[in-house]
Amino acid sequence: METSVLQPPLILSTWHFGRIANRSGWAVLSQGGNALDAAEAGCRAVEEDPSVTSVGLGGYPDAAGEVTLDALIMAAPHRCGAVACLRDYLPAISIARRVMEKTPHVLLAGPGAEAFAAAEGFPRRSLLTREAREAWERWKREHKSGSGDKLAHDNSPGQEAHDTIGVLAIDGAGRIAGGCSTSGLAFKLPGRVGDSPLVGHGLYVDPDVGGAVGTGHGELIMRVCGTFLIVEEMRRGASPADAIKVALERLNCQCRPDPRQQAAFIALRCDGAWSAGCLRKGFQVAVRSATVDILTEPDVVLMEGD
Amino acid sequence: METSVLQPPLILSTWHFGRIANRSGWAVLSQGGNALDAAEAGCRAVEEDPSVTSVGLGGYPDAAGEVTLDALIMAAPHRCGAVACLRDYLPAISIARRVMEKTPHVLLAGPGAEAFAAAEGFPRRSLLTREAREAWERWKREHKSGSGDKLAHDNSPGQEAHDTIGVLAIDGAGRIAGGCSTSGLAFKLPGRVGDSPLVGHGLYVDPDVGGAVGTGHGELIMRVCGTFLIVEEMRRGASPADAIKVALERLNCQCRPDPRQQAAFIALRCDGAWSAGCLRKGFQVAVRSATVDILTEPDVVLMEGD
Repeated sequence: METSVLQPPLILSTWHFGRIANRSGWAVLSQGGNALDAAEAGCRAVEEDPSVTSVGLGGYPDAAGEVTLDALIMAAPHRCGAVACLRDYLPAISIARRVMEKTPHVLLAGPGAEAFAAAEGFPRRSLLTREAREAWERWKREHKSGSGDKLAHDNSPGQEAHDTIGVLAIDGAGRIAGGCSTSGLAFKLPGRVGDSPLVGHGLYVDPDVGGAVGTGHGELIMRVCGTFLIVEEMRRGASPADAIKVALERLNCQCRPDPRQQAAFIALRCDGAWSAGCLRKGFQVAVRSATVDILTEPDVVLMEGD
Repeated sequence: METSVLQPPLILSTWHFGRIANRSGWAVLSQGGNALDAAEAGCRAVEEDPSVTSVGLGGYPDAAGEVTLDALIMAAPHRCGAVACLRDYLPAISIARRVMEKTPHVLLAGPGAEAFAAAEGFPRRSLLTREAREAWERWKREHKSGSGDKLAHDNSPGQEAHDTIGVLAIDGAGRIAGGCSTSGLAFKLPGRVGDSPLVGHGLYVDPDVGGAVGTGHGELIMRVCGTFLIVEEMRRGASPADAIKVALERLNCQCRPDPRQQAAFIALRCDGAWSAGCLRKGFQVAVRSATVDILTEPDVVLMEGD
């Protein structure tokens, strides 16, 4: 498979709203800024856009009506930070960065993450927009035959409601970093954490090799440490496209995805070689560099027939 | 390096209290029970022992005085479940198993995990013993020069307070499974989640290959997906000892452990070949089969000079 290579600086982001991320990230990179700032700025822009219903402000809530955010930022194994099940604070990606910079820990979850955000000076705010509340109320009406508990246990994930913003960037000095952020599956069981805030699940970056970011049904990606697997394959010499194919095949073989479930990855090697791939059609990747500014189809689609 | 091989059924557990786990797990295995039940029974026995100050009941609390539990159980990529930041419910390993069996998710964290435990019929109970409360009060007095927030941000982890119970078992039918459970670092920043509840961090099991379990400073293991890396190495033909060595070297090179920090692993191949290893001296592994019932030193110690 032919390998696409872009001259850094460059930024790659998931889904159509990846263009929003790239616009903000490119503003950093094109002025000589670093990859970590670009990844953070990219995720933050999507978190703050209320029209994106799977990330940040305006994200669809869980089954109990609460919006909870998951995010991870990573520049290297020793430089990563994450938050999970975070309510009432934004941007999750910036709070994740504070975890990285201000604590000896990698991941803070739940009320502890909220207390940390407050102590770091982030203002408390409501993340539930009117549109998201109305969508949740519709979902509740449609599911009201079950009891509350049953409903929470059985809720099947919304099909279009799993789209994490994932960003990978290389700056002009050759530094690589990535970020990802999501409000998780729409109407999820309260407390459910997906792949996004977990190192090597939703995102992995190794400056000696490259990085990978994942999106789709988080449980599929979590079960095979999808992005860590991709970076390991690249470490052993696989092209970004072949590394993604290994992860998709593993996931398809071992995780038993149902026909509605999607998983998608972007992989980026430190030399600017990159690829995007998905289990089935529908995924798009936004690409920006000095010469390119596009939204494009992935080159790897495991189930071409779908 | 010579490879130790035991005839299944067998059970391997971390630290001296691994003998407690093995006793309960062996009661399952020796009667023809399955590996998943043995792993659960082993972790549960240590969770319920109030004298173990890093797992379950009697575990040391976080900086705010709350005991929070993390646990993961795994038999295969499509069969795993976990809880993180769980307060007031026990056994965490059994609640993790319910996540696996009753939900489409992998990980529930925080208040959502507690609501799930309640809905599943687990009784609410206090996990803070008098001894753990007194240890926390001593720690608070020693740290009271800082403000509450500063204290929480700066708390350096207790050295002896990171010992996760990790169990790997193969039953008489050749099925493999594992479990791990912890109350996390003593006096940790509230909300801190370590490696234990994360797939491929604290535990990974692939029935086509084998399994691995980790303990020690969770942040070291998280940053390199330690147990997933070990299973990947074994998948490519490495012996359990060589696979552990790869993970320890990676972690030592990339995560910059300080001289007090420990990381340790047990690896088990499906044919009964196993090994244990650690960054520096001090780790022990409990081993039980029809012919063996011992607590022994790991065969791999990365920093022999320590």
